Amino acid sequence: MKCVSVVGIGPGNELYLSIAAKETLEDSDLIVGYKKYVELVEEYLPEKEYLYTGMTKEVDRCKMALEKASEGNCVSVVCSGDAGVYGMAGLVYELSVDYPDVEIDIVPGISAVLSGSAVLGAPIGHDFAVISLSDLLTPWELIEKRLALAGEGDFCICLYNPSSHKRKDYLKKACEILLKHKKEDTVCGYVRNIGREGEEYHILSLKELKDTEVDMFTTVFIGNANTKVIDNKMVTPRGYKGV
Amino acid sequence: MKCVSVVGIGPGNELYLSIAAKETLEDSDLIVGYKKYVELVEEYLPEKEYLYTGMTKEVDRCKMALEKASEGNCVSVVCSGDAGVYGMAGLVYELSVDYPDVEIDIVPGISAVLSGSAVLGAPIGHDFAVISLSDLLTPWELIEKRLALAGEGDFCICLYNPSSHKRKDYLKKACEILLKHKKEDTVCGYVRNIGREGEEYHILSLKELKDTEVDMFTTVFIGNANTKVIDNKMVTPRGYKGV
Ligand SMILES: C[S@@+](CC[C@H](N)C(=O)[O-])C[C@H]1O[C@@H](n2cnc3c(N)ncnc32)[C@H](O)[C@@H]1O
Ligand SMILES: C[S@@+](CC[C@H](N)C(=O)[O-])C[C@H]1O[C@@H](n2cnc3c(N)ncnc32)[C@H](O)[C@@H]1O
Repeated sequence: MKCVSVVGIGPGNELYLSIAAKETLEDSDLIVGYKKYVELVEEYLPEKEYLYTGMTKEVDRCKMALEKASEGNCVSVVCSGDAGVYGMAGLVYELSVDYPDVEIDIVPGISAVLSGSAVLGAPIGHDFAVISLSDLLTPWELIEKRLALAGEGDFCICLYNPSSHKRKDYLKKACEILLKHKKEDTVCGYVRNIGREGEEYHILSLKELKDTEVDMFTTVFIGNANTKVIDNKMVTPRGYKGV
Repeated sequence: MKCVSVVGIGPGNELYLSIAAKETLEDSDLIVGYKKYVELVEEYLPEKEYLYTGMTKEVDRCKMALEKASEGNCVSVVCSGDAGVYGMAGLVYELSVDYPDVEIDIVPGISAVLSGSAVLGAPIGHDFAVISLSDLLTPWELIEKRLALAGEGDFCICLYNPSSHKRKDYLKKACEILLKHKKEDTVCGYVRNIGREGEEYHILSLKELKDTEVDMFTTVFIGNANTKVIDNKMVTPRGYKGV
């Protein structure tokens, strides 16, 4: 069969892989991905054939997968977390118009907003917005606009790509925008290396978050007006009566 | 050990359970949940002990779980999708202050926003907001405000609890608000019974969605300005150059 499955592998650890994702990877002739993610998969599926590319080579990587599929292979493209959340699913569909004989299939995975949330407690127990701070593919003005609107709506907010070498002050800028709408003592948290070696989490106020440096292996959570700390966990109540 | 694990079981099908969730359920002395979800789990783990309650009995259910745990059991509270997204995780933490000897653990799961997204293609390939249309625990005015702000920010939007017997016109109202900010032909989609018998999906315009009735087993997606239809799938590009 000629197929490309875009597979979300969860935060890293095999434990957070779905059974469907595991079976899809096991059944594929070739597994393609960014080097770091391929290495994670190789740990629990050492016997497969792998192909990897560097970090900014997304278009090449997906074309390579479609090419290999059109030659008659079943190819998996692996993404960390979920296949669709800042993952490769959309790009594979866009490129697939040139490969009409290849079937596309998406296997969802536990995205960092969910795996990080489980580590922190229950930070997104109510309506939430997910925003990437990376301006590689999105104008920074649009990111600022979305931050302001999500702040105004008192959404719980989850930030992906909160930092990189070139944009060390983006999280600070984001917090400054959010502080126009959310209180200084809004409960926030961040998780580094979710489901991987060295996993760590921190709970702090929005004011403190503003002056915190995080790296690109971190996912950041900003609570809503009701978010509180219970036993060192970050908890956003849904609002049940009688609690 | 005295513990309560709040476990996200994914959309329904055993295939979308994570390996961690499966192991946690297998290791627990008792599995507690809403009847419908308990029945889903019973299908693949028939040998366990189960306790279930009705739909609006969330507080009772979580107290029961904590009570059983404090008697020396390892209890799993099952939620569909993810444990934290409109699930029981927050409530268990809130109630746990009365049970200081019980350890709480959250096992994330594939929430409907991710499982539904995989069925539709790649609808949330960019920044997105998740909003519940249920006004049982949230004032409708706040829901309206969040819809308007998410529309204004051109977020991809995912709606949970889009309907119920008492609020058949809520999706219509939501679309009317979104139409103030998004074009009539914005690509939308909805998925019913994700990962369960009778799974179905539909892709349509925001204008058409406004006049569509869906039920409570449905998750609804509204695209951003760039969302398009490719081969009957809903695709929101991330914006890679050269595509
Ligand atoms: C290009 S995005 C990929 C997101 C991925 N598809 C998902 O659904 O989680 C990369 C960003 O995701 C977040 N992330 C992904 N995996 C993570 C992990 N194991 N620990 C912490 N953050 C993670 C970080 O914010 C990182 O900068
Ligand atoms: C109380 S919320 C529970 C959400 C769940 N914790 C999750 O993370 O998916 C119930 C709503 O979730 C959505 N939902 C959950 N499971 C679904 C499924 N299998 N198919 C379609 N929608 C689903 C529907 O919008 C439904 O009204």
